[in-house]
Amino acid sequence: MTRETFRVTLQPEGRSVFVLRGTTLVEAAGQAGVILNQPCGGDGACGKCRVEVLQDPPPPTAADREHLSPRELEDGWRLACRLAVASDLVVSIPQETRFFEQMILAEGEGCRYPFQPNLRKKLVTVGEPTVEDQRSDLDRLKAAIGEDGLEAGLSLIRALPGILRGGRPHVTAVLEGKEIQWVEAGDTTDRIWGVAFDIGTTSVVGALMDLGDGRTAAVASRTNPQVHFGDDVVSRISYIENTRDGLEKLRRRLLTCLNEIIIELCESAGAEPESIYEATAVGNTTMSHIFLGVDPSPIAHAPYVAVLRESVDVKAREVGLEINRNANLHVLPNIAGFVGSDTVAVILASGIARDDAVQLAIDIGTNGEVVMGNRLRLVACSCAAGPAFEGARIRYGMRATEGAISKVVINEGVEVGVIGGGRPTGICGSGLVDAVAELLDAGAIDETGRIAAPAQAPALSDELKAAIVEFEDQLAVVLVDGAQSKTGRPILLTQRDVREVQLAKAAMRAGIEVVAEEFGVAPTEVARVLLAGGFGNFIRRSHAKRIGLLPPIRSERIDFIGNAAATGAKTVLACGDCRAEAERISRETEYVELASRPGFQARFAEAITFPPPG
Amino acid sequence: MTRETFRVTLQPEGRSVFVLRGTTLVEAAGQAGVILNQPCGGDGACGKCRVEVLQDPPPPTAADREHLSPRELEDGWRLACRLAVASDLVVSIPQETRFFEQMILAEGEGCRYPFQPNLRKKLVTVGEPTVEDQRSDLDRLKAAIGEDGLEAGLSLIRALPGILRGGRPHVTAVLEGKEIQWVEAGDTTDRIWGVAFDIGTTSVVGALMDLGDGRTAAVASRTNPQVHFGDDVVSRISYIENTRDGLEKLRRRLLTCLNEIIIELCESAGAEPESIYEATAVGNTTMSHIFLGVDPSPIAHAPYVAVLRESVDVKAREVGLEINRNANLHVLPNIAGFVGSDTVAVILASGIARDDAVQLAIDIGTNGEVVMGNRLRLVACSCAAGPAFEGARIRYGMRATEGAISKVVINEGVEVGVIGGGRPTGICGSGLVDAVAELLDAGAIDETGRIAAPAQAPALSDELKAAIVEFEDQLAVVLVDGAQSKTGRPILLTQRDVREVQLAKAAMRAGIEVVAEEFGVAPTEVARVLLAGGFGNFIRRSHAKRIGLLPPIRSERIDFIGNAAATGAKTVLACGDCRAEAERISRETEYVELASRPGFQARFAEAITFPPPG
Repeated sequence: MTRETFRVTLQPEGRSVFVLRGTTLVEAAGQAGVILNQPCGGDGACGKCRVEVLQDPPPPTAADREHLSPRELEDGWRLACRLAVASDLVVSIPQETRFFEQMILAEGEGCRYPFQPNLRKKLVTVGEPTVEDQRSDLDRLKAAIGEDGLEAGLSLIRALPGILRGGRPHVTAVLEGKEIQWVEAGDTTDRIWGVAFDIGTTSVVGALMDLGDGRTAAVASRTNPQVHFGDDVVSRISYIENTRDGLEKLRRRLLTCLNEIIIELCESAGAEPESIYEATAVGNTTMSHIFLGVDPSPIAHAPYVAVLRESVDVKAREVGLEINRNANLHVLPNIAGFVGSDTVAVILASGIARDDAVQLAIDIGTNGEVVMGNRLRLVACSCAAGPAFEGARIRYGMRATEGAISKVVINEGVEVGVIGGGRPTGICGSGLVDAVAELLDAGAIDETGRIAAPAQAPALSDELKAAIVEFEDQLAVVLVDGAQSKTGRPILLTQRDVREVQLAKAAMRAGIEVVAEEFGVAPTEVARVLLAGGFGNFIRRSHAKRIGLLPPIRSERIDFIGNAAATGAKTVLACGDCRAEAERISRETEYVELASRPGFQARFAEAITFPPPG
Repeated sequence: MTRETFRVTLQPEGRSVFVLRGTTLVEAAGQAGVILNQPCGGDGACGKCRVEVLQDPPPPTAADREHLSPRELEDGWRLACRLAVASDLVVSIPQETRFFEQMILAEGEGCRYPFQPNLRKKLVTVGEPTVEDQRSDLDRLKAAIGEDGLEAGLSLIRALPGILRGGRPHVTAVLEGKEIQWVEAGDTTDRIWGVAFDIGTTSVVGALMDLGDGRTAAVASRTNPQVHFGDDVVSRISYIENTRDGLEKLRRRLLTCLNEIIIELCESAGAEPESIYEATAVGNTTMSHIFLGVDPSPIAHAPYVAVLRESVDVKAREVGLEINRNANLHVLPNIAGFVGSDTVAVILASGIARDDAVQLAIDIGTNGEVVMGNRLRLVACSCAAGPAFEGARIRYGMRATEGAISKVVINEGVEVGVIGGGRPTGICGSGLVDAVAELLDAGAIDETGRIAAPAQAPALSDELKAAIVEFEDQLAVVLVDGAQSKTGRPILLTQRDVREVQLAKAAMRAGIEVVAEEFGVAPTEVARVLLAGGFGNFIRRSHAKRIGLLPPIRSERIDFIGNAAATGAKTVLACGDCRAEAERISRETEYVELASRPGFQARFAEAITFPPPG
């Protein structure tokens, strides 16, 4: 049977997630990538996680009554940490309640990075030239701006006579440090936008930020159209190596996608692409190389090095981004061939590089990244987990979209939660982790990963025994029978699927252990474990530990930090000085190459088996 | 009759000039734009002006015997200041004898600017990446170069994997300060070129410099193809204002010309365009604007301001120069709408901005520039002389090319010298100055510029009386009769021609007086007067004074400094630090706008008449 789930829709994003009854709103928001601010740790003590329930708010809790006024309660305000979902909800999450927004925006506690964008606008009056004042257009403009050491590029100079002779007395200068980046006729000081991209192998996310106040005005994402040329970085590189102009073809595909996102963001926020004056981007090392038109081939061959580690600043028009013609593009630095600027962004956004306490950040994916460290030292590796957690190489696997089984609970029999709430068509990564963990606890899978034949497992419930079947010369567990699936065929977890999960989790876990060993602190002793990225936000902590994907860390010390890579890209947009910190992270993070490390294979083999129960 | 002239050919330029018997080789070289080094002032005392006469050297003088060894005398070496031309000569001018080359190259006396180009090459070995050394291509390259704070642009990064994997152990890095400008496979340290352009309204000159030793390896010039769109800057601007894409059309014409010059220079020197890593350019303000694609229209309308005064550094490929794809182009700064970077270059190359003594630099042309100053202060103006000195608006006027009367001497009758030595077809600027000066001295033209009717001029020789004729309702002087001209028609100097000369010389002279007044030093009191540019190198100093074009300054204080604008462009190529000095000159030179200056019209009217004899 499928368990009851509810749709929670977050505003202003308009993003929805489906959660089981009783899930807290903090958790639900986290699954949607919106991380809430809860200084007290989520026990209703601080009152900081205020949200507004837009329709039919649930009755207030005691904590709500303590922290909110009667008028606020009347208006639907509630504390997200105390709100257990029991119906479909539409909830507006204000800026000040968002962890990362607050981190960037506010002063004081919880504020890691000041809101200090590189760009500012200044309204000035440039005098007409006269016989007495024969200064050039550029000299008069500089004098009107009234700062020392100003510089201007050729592109602005070319546009200058037309702008200054447009008949308006005032012009608005866009300043980036000492560079006059652009000048516009009239007063446009209320329009100053920046765009941040997270370029993933599978998905591309763009966020439009108002550089006047740091507000994220719109978010849009698309599938990276390069997926037609291979679904992982190695197959993309292979395409480049074997195709005439392959690099340029992949680059143009991506560029088209980015420019479509820009248009969508602008339409959504009522902005003009010409008023976007800066772009930032993060991505894995291969995506960054392709985006910049740099051949990533060396990354695919031993010893797997990048052409480019450092950050790149280049005019956005040089790579083809259709924003202001003089806008700068800042691509964050990489760490190694398989640890890209997205990981630098995760480290930056999570703040682990500034804390004294040692923390562990984990981004689970086809190439999972693991970072352990504090402000003194950082160690990272890349784990070749393979695409099992994204549903690939799994008999009934699929991505975490509508129709995917994302939750599995075993009591007497198997119960599942489905994304979108309808009939399921397959199983996604978090469902897999759930299924394996619950089957382990039920005794239907043993420590070695073997599915128990019903005859040899007398302790199993009858319902579970009945669910274990022979399928294609192997054992398999029926998660949903044909009558309840959308396709009419049963959805099974096969023995080989379990093996794929073992390989994937062992790769991640061995990486965690090796990084911890290199750093010299046991994973169980770190102050916090931060799970980043889409998959990380959907798994259940206890189940990730049960299958051994995560070490046995107390669940309250495991935090979801959402799409921290995208947050990092926004952070450097909002805070120009953070780029130096990103550069330092890129330069100083020690990279551990797992394949060549003595002892890695042993750790990997050890991590294949499942931990004993409890 | 035509007077005897001889062809003097200078090597390695292969440039020829025609001079009258008795002209010194220093003067002849000066007419060809090659300025010789003569610390002693040209009286044979120092022995620095050594040249090698390649065929039939004239007998040695006493000064030659004193400064040169018997073996050198035997080989044809002579002192140029003592060599009076009495036959056709082919002469090789070594580097150390050239004033500007020596100025840039040598250390010690006479050396104004050190040879310190911005670019250098370094041969390095970039190690292969290994499992132990996983640094990126760029990081390994930087480590191999071994300097702090190195930077690299996207264009280099894109090319890097191909270069490093070319199979050769060594690569050559081209460094510009802290920027890794380019990298080449193998050892190319012996090839490092720069190109300097002087973009005139009429002519474009390019020089290819070996940035390894400062040697000028080739010089080439072409007519600016924009002349088809108007022969002065105002008509070019008018074309731009009245033609769709007019700016782009003019820019492309110029660019094609510059790229042809680059090919010619490379063929001549055995260089590759890809091995030219930097370009510098000077020109009048309108030419610089067009070259950079900046609309020069404001220059043509009151109050005649430029869009751009400052220098511009831009990738050469951005403006379309076909040299190394990552080469920098440095366009020198302007002073005002009608005083361009060519004048900055003249000031720089002449060294007047560094001397304590006050000097006067004059570049005579359609727009003549006048600069007075020393290291503390500089004052400049632009004089609208019009094209008379270039042969335009003169009945039989022509440019200073083969067939032009360039010298006029009047004894009993009129004698002329012709460029190329054949029959004349017209008269050029220096011939005009000669003719008017000689006719003034002979009494055939009076102080007001009126040509004397033979009946009212009893003191004239009979021969001269016979040369004064009625022509098209005015008086005119026959310089060459039809029997001796190439066309079969007589070549005359008409009354209106004399008026044109008066207007032109008055404009220049009034500019000189106003600049001197502004500066506060009489033109006759300056330490030196420096005549720059093609025309300046052909006129006779005494005659320029006789007609009042120049103030009555002792001739030994008037020096020809050749194409000082081109020399300035070469100077900043050879000496990167000189760019700051050029910027200072641009910023600090006071510009006097003549048209709006009270008293200018009175000075102009005063300068129309000719000075009294003696």
